[in-house]
Amino acid sequence: MPLVVVGSVALDSVETPTETRENLLGGSAVFFSYAASYFTPTWLVSVVGDDWPPEHTELLDARGIDTSGLKKVPGKTFSWRGRYYDDMNHRETLEVNLNVFEDFDPTLAEAHCRCKYLFLANGPPAVQLRVLDQCPGAQLAVADTMDLWIKSSRDEMTELLRRIDGLVLNDSEAKLLTGEENLVRAGHATCALGPRFVVIKKGEHGAMFFSRHETYVLPAYPTPNVLDPTGAGDSFGGGMMGYLAEQGNFEPKTLKKALAYGMLTASFTVEGFSLDGLKKVRREDIEQRMDEYRKMLAF
Amino acid sequence: MPLVVVGSVALDSVETPTETRENLLGGSAVFFSYAASYFTPTWLVSVVGDDWPPEHTELLDARGIDTSGLKKVPGKTFSWRGRYYDDMNHRETLEVNLNVFEDFDPTLAEAHCRCKYLFLANGPPAVQLRVLDQCPGAQLAVADTMDLWIKSSRDEMTELLRRIDGLVLNDSEAKLLTGEENLVRAGHATCALGPRFVVIKKGEHGAMFFSRHETYVLPAYPTPNVLDPTGAGDSFGGGMMGYLAEQGNFEPKTLKKALAYGMLTASFTVEGFSLDGLKKVRREDIEQRMDEYRKMLAF
Repeated sequence: MPLVVVGSVALDSVETPTETRENLLGGSAVFFSYAASYFTPTWLVSVVGDDWPPEHTELLDARGIDTSGLKKVPGKTFSWRGRYYDDMNHRETLEVNLNVFEDFDPTLAEAHCRCKYLFLANGPPAVQLRVLDQCPGAQLAVADTMDLWIKSSRDEMTELLRRIDGLVLNDSEAKLLTGEENLVRAGHATCALGPRFVVIKKGEHGAMFFSRHETYVLPAYPTPNVLDPTGAGDSFGGGMMGYLAEQGNFEPKTLKKALAYGMLTASFTVEGFSLDGLKKVRREDIEQRMDEYRKMLAF
Repeated sequence: MPLVVVGSVALDSVETPTETRENLLGGSAVFFSYAASYFTPTWLVSVVGDDWPPEHTELLDARGIDTSGLKKVPGKTFSWRGRYYDDMNHRETLEVNLNVFEDFDPTLAEAHCRCKYLFLANGPPAVQLRVLDQCPGAQLAVADTMDLWIKSSRDEMTELLRRIDGLVLNDSEAKLLTGEENLVRAGHATCALGPRFVVIKKGEHGAMFFSRHETYVLPAYPTPNVLDPTGAGDSFGGGMMGYLAEQGNFEPKTLKKALAYGMLTASFTVEGFSLDGLKKVRREDIEQRMDEYRKMLAF
């Protein structure tokens, strides 16, 4: 089943302890759609400026991602610069230029509006709500968010939480949103705000799932080759939603497998800069890692 | 099969964001032996001062722990004071008084020397080595350690690592020991220093296992009720070694189950101050949590 993602497309500059790379293909919708494309037809909705290198779009097209919703407007593309410290778990944002993304208020094409699976990547909740309004037939609408919106847009955030089916956010954001320091409590408290399920991402430590009837945690796949964690969270979302859309259901059993697929897809992303880690991957590689992951958790 | 643990017995004062408790029963050998006692006969070897409350020993005796190796000497018992911050994952040691533990250099009873399963809880590697010398028949000797010894006693540490079968340490200690920031690399690098297996404890995020042929990570059991994390790592060790000694083997399959039992035993410890969380538990409660844990990891 096709999956629509609305989010950012960016040019990233990344500094790690060993290497600096400039103007890489990045953005939440890029990592998400590339990861999701291993599982299901994926439609990307975003905006870029007139400085956008066409080869980036070609790379997405080559994976079969529908980029007809990627609008080019006058101005510069959203850019981000970040630095990772020794253990790769702590990052500092050095520079953010929203540029054309600042006025991004998408009007979805008719085909996109009819989607059943919708992912609202990190963005202002007001924009996420307006996208949601355009997709009244969405059976599964899941959103990502970040600390900025939790702090600055409480009212829209509250409305969004009442209207979406699932929320994906990281551990510090869950604590900020709920005021609970214990992640199990934070997860349940987030569920109580509306979504049917909540996924708390813990980076290299895996992810936790919460619904009214279920709580579980799955570890991340342990990779020794972490080159650049940028986009891991978005790739997680893409792998998870991609698998759900592929299966065409979001039963508890499917959701749990989707969480695992999200984690495994993300484990490839961190093994290279930008999409380098994911680009080398075929679906068989994900399945092979899934076999290893299942063995790892069996005892 | 009986299990010998050599380590500290202490009086702990613990400050959490909501509560402060003074002079609690604590110490690595106490948490370890109490946790292990659910699985196998456990012999504790340690030292206390003449201020030691006899009811603490009675509590250990009541669980069937052999305390004949708990020596009482003139002076004050080892005491520790620590503070936990909001998320309970960060703690600060406010005060340490080694007292009688400073000169602790145990001479094991003959029966203890014949043990097949031996745990060297955190202590100076020189002392751990002298205990090891006294137990030439140990089939499985596992040690814990801490940053202090890694920094101050490199030579003895190097010798210890060559002689033990397994090492249990936490994530920051593994990074310090090996200079590797990635935990998968740090685990393998630790193995390369000698032990047949290495377990890296990640607190609320679970534990990683490394041997020449296997790498895996298991998540911690997600509990919403973290009152006091003191002793969780030692309880983990106790549950793990207790299960191995109970089974009487340390095959890869048994080791993996042992890791899970260690994690589950520790999940009870954090639900109360001192031994309060663990004290309420029967073996059936651990088995019930094991059932939930297995379901959690199955998909």
